[in-house]
Amino acid sequence: MNTINIAILGCGTVGGGVAQIITEINKELVIRSDAKLTLNKIVELNPTIAAERFHLPMELFCGSGKNLSPQEASAYIEDIIKSNEIDIVVETIGGTSDFVHQLCLDIVASGKHLVTANKALLAERGKDIFDVAEKKGVKIGFEAAVCGAIPIVKTVKENLTGDKILSISGIMNGTSNYILSQMQNENLEFDTALKLAQENGYAEADPSLDINGGDAGHKIILLIKLAYGIDVTMEELSMTGIENISKEDMDFANEIDAKIKLICYAKKMNGDIYATVRPMMVKNSNVLSGVNGATNAVRVNCKYSGKHILVGKGAGSSETAMSIVSDIVFISRYGKQIRNIAEKQERNFADANHFVFPYLITFHTADIPGTTGFITTEIGKQDINIDTVSHNRHSGKKATFSVATMPSTIEKIEKAIDNIKKERPNLLLSETKIMPILY
Amino acid sequence: MNTINIAILGCGTVGGGVAQIITEINKELVIRSDAKLTLNKIVELNPTIAAERFHLPMELFCGSGKNLSPQEASAYIEDIIKSNEIDIVVETIGGTSDFVHQLCLDIVASGKHLVTANKALLAERGKDIFDVAEKKGVKIGFEAAVCGAIPIVKTVKENLTGDKILSISGIMNGTSNYILSQMQNENLEFDTALKLAQENGYAEADPSLDINGGDAGHKIILLIKLAYGIDVTMEELSMTGIENISKEDMDFANEIDAKIKLICYAKKMNGDIYATVRPMMVKNSNVLSGVNGATNAVRVNCKYSGKHILVGKGAGSSETAMSIVSDIVFISRYGKQIRNIAEKQERNFADANHFVFPYLITFHTADIPGTTGFITTEIGKQDINIDTVSHNRHSGKKATFSVATMPSTIEKIEKAIDNIKKERPNLLLSETKIMPILY
Repeated sequence: MNTINIAILGCGTVGGGVAQIITEINKELVIRSDAKLTLNKIVELNPTIAAERFHLPMELFCGSGKNLSPQEASAYIEDIIKSNEIDIVVETIGGTSDFVHQLCLDIVASGKHLVTANKALLAERGKDIFDVAEKKGVKIGFEAAVCGAIPIVKTVKENLTGDKILSISGIMNGTSNYILSQMQNENLEFDTALKLAQENGYAEADPSLDINGGDAGHKIILLIKLAYGIDVTMEELSMTGIENISKEDMDFANEIDAKIKLICYAKKMNGDIYATVRPMMVKNSNVLSGVNGATNAVRVNCKYSGKHILVGKGAGSSETAMSIVSDIVFISRYGKQIRNIAEKQERNFADANHFVFPYLITFHTADIPGTTGFITTEIGKQDINIDTVSHNRHSGKKATFSVATMPSTIEKIEKAIDNIKKERPNLLLSETKIMPILY
Repeated sequence: MNTINIAILGCGTVGGGVAQIITEINKELVIRSDAKLTLNKIVELNPTIAAERFHLPMELFCGSGKNLSPQEASAYIEDIIKSNEIDIVVETIGGTSDFVHQLCLDIVASGKHLVTANKALLAERGKDIFDVAEKKGVKIGFEAAVCGAIPIVKTVKENLTGDKILSISGIMNGTSNYILSQMQNENLEFDTALKLAQENGYAEADPSLDINGGDAGHKIILLIKLAYGIDVTMEELSMTGIENISKEDMDFANEIDAKIKLICYAKKMNGDIYATVRPMMVKNSNVLSGVNGATNAVRVNCKYSGKHILVGKGAGSSETAMSIVSDIVFISRYGKQIRNIAEKQERNFADANHFVFPYLITFHTADIPGTTGFITTEIGKQDINIDTVSHNRHSGKKATFSVATMPSTIEKIEKAIDNIKKERPNLLLSETKIMPILY
């Protein structure tokens, strides 16, 4: 039986969880990986805290358990990269700094397998790391980088290989989902729900990346790479966060039997690949609508096998660590036969404005009889069929109502809104919201 | 690049789907499997029908497309087993006959990999097939045998390898789930819902195996083998079907915010493995409660990563075929490194009567004041805590009510019922139902 030596760089929430699992169920892991899985070295600035939290012996830590300066830590990391003994390096430092980027490049360039939960790094600066890994024939395990514990990476890459993936959609950010669930269930405005999330530890002091769609964007970029073999940049991805969702939007969602969720969506249609991250009205008949709080969920729609849904924990120490350990087992067992990403396809990444969806359009207008007729006529002129018109309220001199369309493009809808503004410049009182409806 | 030659035995609904997928997306499959996947031979009694339905060229069929007698088919099968050219044999004949059992034994004994959707065969007579495969170092792909398109076999065997599986529960039979969904949503009695299911093609003329839990039992037996490495026989498995579920049970389910589902359940606790197939009251907070119609769903609860839920198509031609093709790809790519089942564990299969669950007990009694007090006192005497008491109706001289308990064993509940019968022989008017509550 082979021995597989593992080094962990960064023994915080996730790295510590990895060390703990490898230690606690080593006997099972050895059988499953067909190798003597050995945790050799951990590099961590503050070993005392980590050792206590994760029940780890001091001798596992480089420097025998004394606190390290960043310089000392770097030197130990360099030793690990140079070492011929280490087979797999777990990078759980995080971030997209030049330091971490170079570190990951060095790991794969040195012929070692890399396992990481670092979605931001792989999505924003991962291309050259994957390229070098390919050249060196080493593997990059990143199950933990997409939806924490949910094994969506292996599901796409290893389990649905007898199929063609038509689309992937999902709730991939727990913080924003917690906020939206609170807004919907407790009838809160966004700011109140965000504050609550911060107080309860579901949102960080700076929650930008969670609520503006950035974190979810990283994940869908990695899934696109896996499912369609193409690289999409954050700049190319059409992304809208949840900052502008209001109680009123929640009311309209209720009226069409839907819940508002921040949805990652990627679809291949007629050779083009569309992708977006934005709030959508998810119909209650779709299982994703019932996924509340910090839970993540992914729906994969396939040509032959139909819809698959995976629900699980999107974050957490032992949850994310489990995905890293399962990557270690997979790499130890199957080694060089594993492929890192999907077969490359022709790169046809399409503009989200051409994306065909049914949409919910919410209008805020002056309260003038005939408005519904005028607006729906203008929509009809753009060849858009209308499904439902819901009136929310007539208050004072204002009226609010929403129009649910049949599948259309945003481009056409914006054309209709432009024409409405041109024809009757004072009719629309504030921003018109356009949100896809997901069945 | 290696060539992997495939033979398909039986080109009906599933086998035909396999042939079609291998033909249609061969280019992708070759990249994913890292091998020239070649469909060499199909043995089928009526090739004309199959060729037309699945768009297959006649020359793929043994006998060049002419109808075969069973004797001719057997001779062709024998040739395939003897052949040194064939690497993977897909068995889609089905059934647990001696013929199919011997056939599968011969396939693995000849050093060929076996891929099959035959849950009944593997669950009831699979042990020696797995043993011979182990000796010969060949692989048995049976993703398609458990919940059709849902990749639950690979999820347990390859994706959650960094964890310990605490329990598996799920809706694994689409027919019974369709019937229960109809009963609950359309307020039907069992017989009417069954008839409807037969008329709509969701249930066969002889639906026994679907409604008595047998089909679901086969699947949980295979999952137990995968998760815990032990063999359980159908005789050992505690199994109750859905034949006795009534509209009244549905009412009580509504009262405790639950839906009745036929649940497969396996759990490891203190070293013992418990398993059962039976109708359960699934609380609406559990995603499984929202899984309706012919859909399947599995929940895997893990030590480190918490709850995972997979939802997908449990049956169908291309759906089941997709799972077979993904097994072919997996075997082609990873070959001898794959393990067929989980690491063996100590065999401690426990009596379902010791299974600890919260239960819903439904009593039909004479309508006498003081009955609730008397019955709940007797339950309390067995050290069972009571959660809720729901009164359904007092009609004429009869009363119906249900008691939801805190976690307890069936053994204790039956003791309480026995004591009630002893103390007041005429109080209970008809069968007392005991159903687990699944949170």
